[in-house]
Amino acid sequence: MQEAESQATHTIVFEPSGRTVQAGPGMSIIKAAREAGIHINASCGGSGVCGKCKVIIEKGEVAGGLSEKFSLQERESGYRQACTATIAGDAVIRVPESSGLKSGGLGTAVPLRHRARMHVYDIEALREQGMFVPPVVKLCLDVPPPTAGDNMADAGRVIHLLSSRHDEHRVVFNLAVLRMLRKALRQDDFRITVTCARPVNVSGKSYLTNIQGGDWTHRSFGLAFDIGTTSVYGVLVDLNSGKVLARAGEYNGQLGYGEDVISRIIFAEKKEGLEKMQELVVTTINSILDTLLSQARPADSGEKGGISREEITSITLAGNTTMTHLLLRLEPDNIRRAPYVPVTTFLPPIRATDLGINLPHSAVALVYPSISSYVGGDIVAGVMGSGMYRTELVTLYIDIGTNAEIVVGNREWLVCAACSAGPAFEGGGITHGMRAALGAIEDFSLNPQTLEPMNITLGNKPPVGICGSGLLAIIATLFEQGVVGRSGKFRRDLATDRIREGRSGYEYVLVWREEAGADHDIVINEVDIENFIRAKAAIYAGITTLVEQVGLAITDIEQVILAGAFGSYIDLDSAMTVGLLPQVDASRVLYVGNGSLMGAWMSEMSNHIRRDVVEVVRKMTSFELSEMPVFQEQYIASHFLPHTDLGRFPLVAERIAEIRRD
Amino acid sequence: MQEAESQATHTIVFEPSGRTVQAGPGMSIIKAAREAGIHINASCGGSGVCGKCKVIIEKGEVAGGLSEKFSLQERESGYRQACTATIAGDAVIRVPESSGLKSGGLGTAVPLRHRARMHVYDIEALREQGMFVPPVVKLCLDVPPPTAGDNMADAGRVIHLLSSRHDEHRVVFNLAVLRMLRKALRQDDFRITVTCARPVNVSGKSYLTNIQGGDWTHRSFGLAFDIGTTSVYGVLVDLNSGKVLARAGEYNGQLGYGEDVISRIIFAEKKEGLEKMQELVVTTINSILDTLLSQARPADSGEKGGISREEITSITLAGNTTMTHLLLRLEPDNIRRAPYVPVTTFLPPIRATDLGINLPHSAVALVYPSISSYVGGDIVAGVMGSGMYRTELVTLYIDIGTNAEIVVGNREWLVCAACSAGPAFEGGGITHGMRAALGAIEDFSLNPQTLEPMNITLGNKPPVGICGSGLLAIIATLFEQGVVGRSGKFRRDLATDRIREGRSGYEYVLVWREEAGADHDIVINEVDIENFIRAKAAIYAGITTLVEQVGLAITDIEQVILAGAFGSYIDLDSAMTVGLLPQVDASRVLYVGNGSLMGAWMSEMSNHIRRDVVEVVRKMTSFELSEMPVFQEQYIASHFLPHTDLGRFPLVAERIAEIRRD
Repeated sequence: MQEAESQATHTIVFEPSGRTVQAGPGMSIIKAAREAGIHINASCGGSGVCGKCKVIIEKGEVAGGLSEKFSLQERESGYRQACTATIAGDAVIRVPESSGLKSGGLGTAVPLRHRARMHVYDIEALREQGMFVPPVVKLCLDVPPPTAGDNMADAGRVIHLLSSRHDEHRVVFNLAVLRMLRKALRQDDFRITVTCARPVNVSGKSYLTNIQGGDWTHRSFGLAFDIGTTSVYGVLVDLNSGKVLARAGEYNGQLGYGEDVISRIIFAEKKEGLEKMQELVVTTINSILDTLLSQARPADSGEKGGISREEITSITLAGNTTMTHLLLRLEPDNIRRAPYVPVTTFLPPIRATDLGINLPHSAVALVYPSISSYVGGDIVAGVMGSGMYRTELVTLYIDIGTNAEIVVGNREWLVCAACSAGPAFEGGGITHGMRAALGAIEDFSLNPQTLEPMNITLGNKPPVGICGSGLLAIIATLFEQGVVGRSGKFRRDLATDRIREGRSGYEYVLVWREEAGADHDIVINEVDIENFIRAKAAIYAGITTLVEQVGLAITDIEQVILAGAFGSYIDLDSAMTVGLLPQVDASRVLYVGNGSLMGAWMSEMSNHIRRDVVEVVRKMTSFELSEMPVFQEQYIASHFLPHTDLGRFPLVAERIAEIRRD
Repeated sequence: MQEAESQATHTIVFEPSGRTVQAGPGMSIIKAAREAGIHINASCGGSGVCGKCKVIIEKGEVAGGLSEKFSLQERESGYRQACTATIAGDAVIRVPESSGLKSGGLGTAVPLRHRARMHVYDIEALREQGMFVPPVVKLCLDVPPPTAGDNMADAGRVIHLLSSRHDEHRVVFNLAVLRMLRKALRQDDFRITVTCARPVNVSGKSYLTNIQGGDWTHRSFGLAFDIGTTSVYGVLVDLNSGKVLARAGEYNGQLGYGEDVISRIIFAEKKEGLEKMQELVVTTINSILDTLLSQARPADSGEKGGISREEITSITLAGNTTMTHLLLRLEPDNIRRAPYVPVTTFLPPIRATDLGINLPHSAVALVYPSISSYVGGDIVAGVMGSGMYRTELVTLYIDIGTNAEIVVGNREWLVCAACSAGPAFEGGGITHGMRAALGAIEDFSLNPQTLEPMNITLGNKPPVGICGSGLLAIIATLFEQGVVGRSGKFRRDLATDRIREGRSGYEYVLVWREEAGADHDIVINEVDIENFIRAKAAIYAGITTLVEQVGLAITDIEQVILAGAFGSYIDLDSAMTVGLLPQVDASRVLYVGNGSLMGAWMSEMSNHIRRDVVEVVRKMTSFELSEMPVFQEQYIASHFLPHTDLGRFPLVAERIAEIRRD
């Protein structure tokens, strides 16, 4: 989720190739090189240990990057370590032959990064489309005071005005507002501000949820939350301007009771377990809410002026089906038992206080509906918020984690499935796999002549292990360079001590022990590659199966929307090279970040989305892949790099041929 | 409010006139005589003191009626006191000349009683009209269990079945029901009973408010309450059969804080006063509810089986505008201040528990809407429940108390007003006026020759004072017999010591001190009559004004519906004689009893009424009589017995002529 924001970037030219990249201040030189498709030997992950990544600053300035290993002359000549030096302005940087490729092989050896285009939300565009209609609106009314000739009741007076001047024809007071009405009307001479919660169905009624004496229309704020199994994120938005005023996130308080949804369900089945689970996540939400309120400073508030809790009128929450059940204290028991029946997919609108969220009684809560036990509200939110449900393009929406949730369709039709990919993309089941934490190898390139690696780690720390995006980059690169074959086995005949026979078949040594942040060599072996292939095969088979259910072929996909943490780091070429994603032009791939949070946020911007979601959920057909023989066939066919049928990946075949030709 | 019930009656023949009356066991002979139009001298009100009301039992049996004053011979001849003897079977009773009229004047001297026909509610008729549709229905569903091929969520499964088999197309679960759903479905092999609250508007949604494993459709009960300023009444009904299972009433707990609505409002304006007022009335409601539950025994329950609180699915409450405000904790302050603006007339449906009523969370409460500050939900309930809003006849609905609320109209149009009649009909402002309590003179006739009275008191106790119906009977009779003239003054020339000059003009002695239950003579004087005329003039002027607002004349009224305690005792001929009610054939007058309770009860029987009320309230035009010059004119014209314009009461003129001719 990201709004349009400008950030200063600098121009970095790498010599001798002359390749140029735009990069922001603070990025390490080695990362900038990787973006530019420049290989620099760097096996220690940027911790400055291996000393192989020397570059020369020919022009401009960088920050840091000095090493005790440099001679005085080297220092004066502008030598820096590419891994510890960071961008501080425009610069021209030379990669000496010792650090990079031999001069003959420059240019195409390291593929350029094709990342998904970040989907940017433009409130003005939303406004122009008539979609900027927050679910809750504050209206200022100058109510005609009663007279002897017109002594209609206070409430009737307000409803009459709403109907005649504001086109709100079906408005209902709730009891709490009726109780405040008499005083509020007479507080500022019959000028009042009513908070009007718009209906979620077209024929429905608007509810007056609050009333204030005077004009308070400029103060209307909403919340959007993603309730993730691991983390909970929230944003606070100004419902008048659409601006995000604060963002915050925390680990889900339930994390101490199990990392995945299954262990949470098991806990919830215990006595008082469900109550405990709800309490924990609500505590997390309330804590994030406190942070958001302490951070937010709306444009028109003075030095001290923040936002008071009472000014929050609306909250939208999205999460997977289990998280939704736990939040609402619905019994999740059958989510983990065949045939996987949740209590409900649709949720009625409720008061935020009914969930224990620390907001005024007037705040309306909408929880995103789910499709099934394993395609949850987080995915529906992504489909709604990304606009997928309104596009004409045949679109693949995919959120990759332990489960990959897949939606295919457009404005006319939508099909979806959850696909058990296993934990490989989160580092699980991989010998030296790990989550995306400090020291995780997150990107990689290979010197095709020496087979020396360029390991890029999170936080430029000594390598500790391999995270999901690193795994993808490593396997794709090894395959592109012919080090690994289509079935995922290493070539046995390469002249390098980095490939060797280990306990789990052949392996490639990414980092020698002495350069690692761990007390062992960091390797990737054939079992790891096999596990990865299984995971990617499940996803690709899922996509293919869904597409074929509606009578299309996988080549008919015109657009891909990536969601989730994995999507932000994913190198599109790598993903297509290994056959994780179908082959689509990179310009047709969008990244929406946290799709769940984004969808919840968009729902706060547009009541149209909240209305449309009912219809979208109704028409979205869910498939149980595990029950479909055709999925098994597709899975087996996908059990190669990139696929048994190379005809599905013509560009990949071409590209690999080109890389290997160099 | 009364259902069709049969009660044994006996045939009593009065000799020598041969007049016959049907009367139930336990009725006093004097009352039966009055019903038959037989005058029996009886000034002591039936306490057996005056000894004037001797009758002879010629055939059959009566209970009691013996007196120490009787000689042995009298006893053996069947002499009894008419006031203390009660009906025990068929009987022939002779009124000796000494007790009654001289033989020449028998027959027409005492007018027959024309009481309003009791409006009887026939559930079968309601059923035939398709109106027997309780607001809450229990449906038993055999839900298809989920399978691998059909793993729709529990909630979707139920909604799908409701929509396909029960024609309930727009159903919403509330959160509490969702929380019970999983277990309930699996308790009795996917057979469940859902409690479905039907929408109050046609396009609205049904709410599932409860769910039970198994079939519980035969157990569905509702409550109807009238929240009166003085008393609160409740009934418990079986929503399947329509039968009333229990009735109970108590004084409104607020009574200690003032007898009328104005003093309650003043109290509610104090700090915590409103909260206190709500608490008191809710305590009364809860106490009545306990009584109802302890009394009720539905047909199908065994020896011990009663109704549990949890089986109550619905409650409807009706009361005047102030009572409604206090019940809902809405500030009533402006009800007593010009221009008399209530907070609201419409009330949203709420949960009974939101008001503090001791019912399950699932019980839906509907509070009857009001028209204005002084035409409340009690009157609207009467208009709805009596069927007035559906009739083609131009109907006058009237509930007489301190305020008389008047509604005129039919299915096409309705106009209404509150009319400040003053407390005369409740005994206020009358020298010896009192409420309808033991010893109150409630009926009266006059021996035209001797001008001796026949006082009938409540409970056959020595007379203490005059209640509203007694006042009406006394003034009508005095006027009919020519004792009082059209302007309300006594004839000065009558040869009786019962008429004399007192401190407040001339007066008629109803009861001599020695025969009274008080230590003074009980009289009615010219000031009392003047106060009565003012009250009846206000009401009649109100009716006339309303009728003329819609371009009709008072003679266009085709039907009269009386509500309230006063209406049950009212003698129609007397009411028309004095000009309190317009002249209408007695067969066109209905009595509905407690219209508020009846309307609430009918709402529990028919959701159509709950839906229609919104439209009825919208179209009912309310007038402020005090603001209308035409009302003042009508008031002055009504300031005679029966009216300045005798042409409006041709039958009355005829009847009086006939009476006086005898």
